[in-house]
Amino acid sequence: MSFDLRRRIFDALDALVLIDPHTHINPLSPASTTLADILGYHYYTELAHSAGLPKEEIEEPGLDPKEKVRRLILNAGPTDNTIQYSWLVEMAQKFFGFTDERVTLQNWEPLYDAAAAKMASPDWPQQVLEQSKLEAVFLTNDFDDPLAGFDTNIYVPCLRTDDLVFHLAKPEVRYRLASFTRIEATTAESLRRAIAALFNHFKANNARACAISLPPDFSPAKISDARANTALSALYLHGKAASEADKRAAGSFVFWNLSEMCAEHSLPFDLMIGVNRGVYEAGVHQGRDLYDSRVSLIQYKQLFNAFPQVIFPISVLASVTNQELTSYAWIFPNVVTNGHWWYSNTPTFIEHDLACRLEAVPRTKQIGYYSDMYKLEFALPKFAMYKRILAKVLAERFCIDRDWSEERAVDFGTQILRGNVEAIFYA
Amino acid sequence: MSFDLRRRIFDALDALVLIDPHTHINPLSPASTTLADILGYHYYTELAHSAGLPKEEIEEPGLDPKEKVRRLILNAGPTDNTIQYSWLVEMAQKFFGFTDERVTLQNWEPLYDAAAAKMASPDWPQQVLEQSKLEAVFLTNDFDDPLAGFDTNIYVPCLRTDDLVFHLAKPEVRYRLASFTRIEATTAESLRRAIAALFNHFKANNARACAISLPPDFSPAKISDARANTALSALYLHGKAASEADKRAAGSFVFWNLSEMCAEHSLPFDLMIGVNRGVYEAGVHQGRDLYDSRVSLIQYKQLFNAFPQVIFPISVLASVTNQELTSYAWIFPNVVTNGHWWYSNTPTFIEHDLACRLEAVPRTKQIGYYSDMYKLEFALPKFAMYKRILAKVLAERFCIDRDWSEERAVDFGTQILRGNVEAIFYA
Amino acid sequence: MSFDLRRRIFDALDALVLIDPHTHINPLSPASTTLADILGYHYYTELAHSAGLPKEEIEEPGLDPKEKVRRLILNAGPTDNTIQYSWLVEMAQKFFGFTDERVTLQNWEPLYDAAAAKMASPDWPQQVLEQSKLEAVFLTNDFDDPLAGFDTNIYVPCLRTDDLVFHLAKPEVRYRLASFTRIEATTAESLRRAIAALFNHFKANNARACAISLPPDFSPAKISDARANTALSALYLHGKAASEADKRAAGSFVFWNLSEMCAEHSLPFDLMIGVNRGVYEAGVHQGRDLYDSRVSLIQYKQLFNAFPQVIFPISVLASVTNQELTSYAWIFPNVVTNGHWWYSNTPTFIEHDLACRLEAVPRTKQIGYYSDMYKLEFALPKFAMYKRILAKVLAERFCIDRDWSEERAVDFGTQILRGNVEAIFYA
Repeated sequence: MSFDLRRRIFDALDALVLIDPHTHINPLSPASTTLADILGYHYYTELAHSAGLPKEEIEEPGLDPKEKVRRLILNAGPTDNTIQYSWLVEMAQKFFGFTDERVTLQNWEPLYDAAAAKMASPDWPQQVLEQSKLEAVFLTNDFDDPLAGFDTNIYVPCLRTDDLVFHLAKPEVRYRLASFTRIEATTAESLRRAIAALFNHFKANNARACAISLPPDFSPAKISDARANTALSALYLHGKAASEADKRAAGSFVFWNLSEMCAEHSLPFDLMIGVNRGVYEAGVHQGRDLYDSRVSLIQYKQLFNAFPQVIFPISVLASVTNQELTSYAWIFPNVVTNGHWWYSNTPTFIEHDLACRLEAVPRTKQIGYYSDMYKLEFALPKFAMYKRILAKVLAERFCIDRDWSEERAVDFGTQILRGNVEAIFYA
Repeated sequence: MSFDLRRRIFDALDALVLIDPHTHINPLSPASTTLADILGYHYYTELAHSAGLPKEEIEEPGLDPKEKVRRLILNAGPTDNTIQYSWLVEMAQKFFGFTDERVTLQNWEPLYDAAAAKMASPDWPQQVLEQSKLEAVFLTNDFDDPLAGFDTNIYVPCLRTDDLVFHLAKPEVRYRLASFTRIEATTAESLRRAIAALFNHFKANNARACAISLPPDFSPAKISDARANTALSALYLHGKAASEADKRAAGSFVFWNLSEMCAEHSLPFDLMIGVNRGVYEAGVHQGRDLYDSRVSLIQYKQLFNAFPQVIFPISVLASVTNQELTSYAWIFPNVVTNGHWWYSNTPTFIEHDLACRLEAVPRTKQIGYYSDMYKLEFALPKFAMYKRILAKVLAERFCIDRDWSEERAVDFGTQILRGNVEAIFYA
Repeated sequence: MSFDLRRRIFDALDALVLIDPHTHINPLSPASTTLADILGYHYYTELAHSAGLPKEEIEEPGLDPKEKVRRLILNAGPTDNTIQYSWLVEMAQKFFGFTDERVTLQNWEPLYDAAAAKMASPDWPQQVLEQSKLEAVFLTNDFDDPLAGFDTNIYVPCLRTDDLVFHLAKPEVRYRLASFTRIEATTAESLRRAIAALFNHFKANNARACAISLPPDFSPAKISDARANTALSALYLHGKAASEADKRAAGSFVFWNLSEMCAEHSLPFDLMIGVNRGVYEAGVHQGRDLYDSRVSLIQYKQLFNAFPQVIFPISVLASVTNQELTSYAWIFPNVVTNGHWWYSNTPTFIEHDLACRLEAVPRTKQIGYYSDMYKLEFALPKFAMYKRILAKVLAERFCIDRDWSEERAVDFGTQILRGNVEAIFYA
């Protein structure tokens, strides 16, 4: 009984046309051109490397895409249990007519060629969006992105601000900011104007969110202009050699200012909380970051209280933080749960974290899922994974445990998947 | 098969007459007089507020109860997914003949009137107790509660001690203590006598427990009389402006003294560990508290070792602390698991936390559930939620996974729900 | 459907012959001689004590084994819900023909006698190994164990190093080291030579791993020889009265040196992370240790980066650390997940932790289970518990949720249970 129920709920949810509220898509090259774009995703390179493939073989300069795919497939066996591997197989099956359950040295080459042929079509990105039932995907744009050359209704700009908060000590970041805004941000006042210019630029180009990823020890605090001036002077004088205290003060000042701008421009501020960068120094590209799960949303108490008018869609890296997220979203009107991020984006964590949210957070305050993808082909299997789990939780914990009708469960799932994205980002 | 099994186990557990070992019932007004008493519960006001209803509309001075209910129902839609909302519907169905699955602007008024009519009956509290199969409920009494005017066999006094440990710096708390005990507690010695007087008063009135809620950073420690004297002098001199160090020393002294009194009077000491008060300053009444889940029972090492003769029924606010609770109850003879508190009192957390305890903690050392209610009507749906989960876990993890007979499972569940409450609090 | 599937997968996994990669077996007395050896296991004595049996009755000097068993059985009722108790019943049933579901005052004596009779057979250890389908068990050897008098292919030496890292301040530890190696380890240089001598001894005797258990606040760091010399001088001068700083420096120096030796000798280094020793001072033998779950693998960042050539099979004491372990094993090639340790070795934690690992860590980097046993009889019920859970997770989360074939699931389970133990420890 429950399997049929799950299947029916899944089918209903799978029929929806969605908006993906967080990706790393390059709108000028949104889809893959060969399988190397897919297997080059850090989820595959880092797993292959973890299972023994030397980094040098993966990141060899000038490596031919086909040879890169061959090497990764040759070494994919030890990872064929992972959910990440299942995304690969599902992409291959759904987009390229692949019929096996594993990609091996025996069958990879026809798949590579079939994919290359399909990807060569000029409207391949549109085909992928259509087959994936996606009508728009949110981007992750550098603060100095010109936001030109693409349809911002489909590829929706979002202002990513890690560089400004965490790397303002780097001369190149300050240079980019000055070049783009024509403002030399040497003081609290001028920095405020420069940030305002960025927001004006993004808002003029249909931006729907401001976003940032944050380390476990970050705790937002209001910084006075005087303190910010001292810190900025130090950053200009010493660059990356400035003291940690000055770097932190400058970063905190920027962060608080971003929140003020979000308030002024009615932009949600996506907080992705908990990542430590560069933990595994010798790792592959984008496969070096891990975390310390000892983080608490109590660190954001001052922020949530200070900005009641800003919506904060929050992602947490570790499942052990999910109960806090659930509770804070239950209490704070401006805190919203947002997707299942990175190391928590695997089925067992999703199932647990999702179930906790569905039963305790107002239904209007939960953004179900985003793909976090770099290439369009990934939305289909990632969202499919999520929808299967959502259907399972709705079937087991609502229809069976709580006697909900199937219709009511589908209605709830629809709001989580689609309705809230519109209500929160298109308000 | 497993659904029938769950149902049969639930039915057996649901037939039990219970004692609710922790509530906030006012014994002089134990049940609701209108639906506003039910919808005014912070679980509903805070969720409605979180979903967008301004605090001013909920807490408007002089607001008519019926209008309050109308406003809350009007704004309840965004929370109709929550387990808290399901309690409302179950109360409406079981007590007032409600037959729909949602309370809406279309059907709330007849429900309001039906409830008001039933609640007007002079024996309504007795009706609720009987229909809820409750023979006694434990109270949460201020230290200076006269404990008069009610049957302490039904409404069982418990000495709540947060004020003494955390607010002794406030002149009004010291005033209340002095007024009630006729002892001016200016020294370690006189404070000890004052606390002893409270215990005598409570024990003379059938008290069954001492209780306190504790913030995540609390760590009990024995304080010398000399240090306590210094701290108390500072509190009397500076009041709330006393130093944090002095406030903490005084609080620690009181806490340790309470433990000594529990030993002397053979009273269990309920510890509710992990809450930060006032995190959301602008929240509704009782909807401002949250937590930092980074807490460990290692902070209680000295206490558990120092008082082997005191039973500590322990509740933890965050599910991530539940494994520590399970392990400490497995090792320490004086540590007992106690219910599922507040932000962990939702089905997914209960199911996980309960399953962990059932399979690793001696069956005599687990207090299954308490309602934490402010009005009697809440026991029925809250206990029903718990019993459904208990039946599910017993069916799936004991009968199916471990081949237990249904009878053995029901026997175990009965002890968790009823037997241990008697054995621990009525020893 | 899923119950039959679970059963079939379990049966396939249960047919495997295994190697147990971590136990505390004494190879000169590997099996029990009476039921007192089984009921004397700390899992039973600590639970009986926790449920009320005074320590004095359990640890009475000169207590007759039969009387000890009688006392423990008399007090086992309150723990008959626990999974630990179920191991006892399963041992009784599988090894001694016991047919009841509880061991009681009515039936324990025939069981005791039947066990004693079987255990009296000179080849009882071999019978147990055979019935348990075990071909080898790894030991936990003191650094000065002569490793003589047993077949190291069946009883495989592992160098346990807690004493060297945490107790070098004790004169008796330094004396044991000097006696065994004929090197007085008063300096960094001589200590390095002494440790090298231990590794040569263990490697010459077929050792397959180095191992250590670590407290939550331990964070490996490289210590200079100069600092180590200062610390060692202090340890020799002051013994246990040496400063914490010197003790830590010496311990860190030893730990780093052990890692270097593991690299040189290609030995995996088992890290068992998170235990606080002696938390319950008045507890029974081996029933005094608990933990602070606030620990992070970020503490091991420097170590994992410094020793890419050393495999670190890692066990974590608390389930809340399991996601970090999963993520670190997903990223770091030298981090491997290892079993389900102690307070996480109960079904609900195993099920959750295992499911998370199976879907995100390369299949080659997961060591499924070890028994941690002190007597051979325990492997059978402990591994059976694990295999039932493994079968459940494979059936539900792979065959059902992800459409895997039964054959593929069994193949994966086989690698987790057996293949990886060979690949990692017999490389």
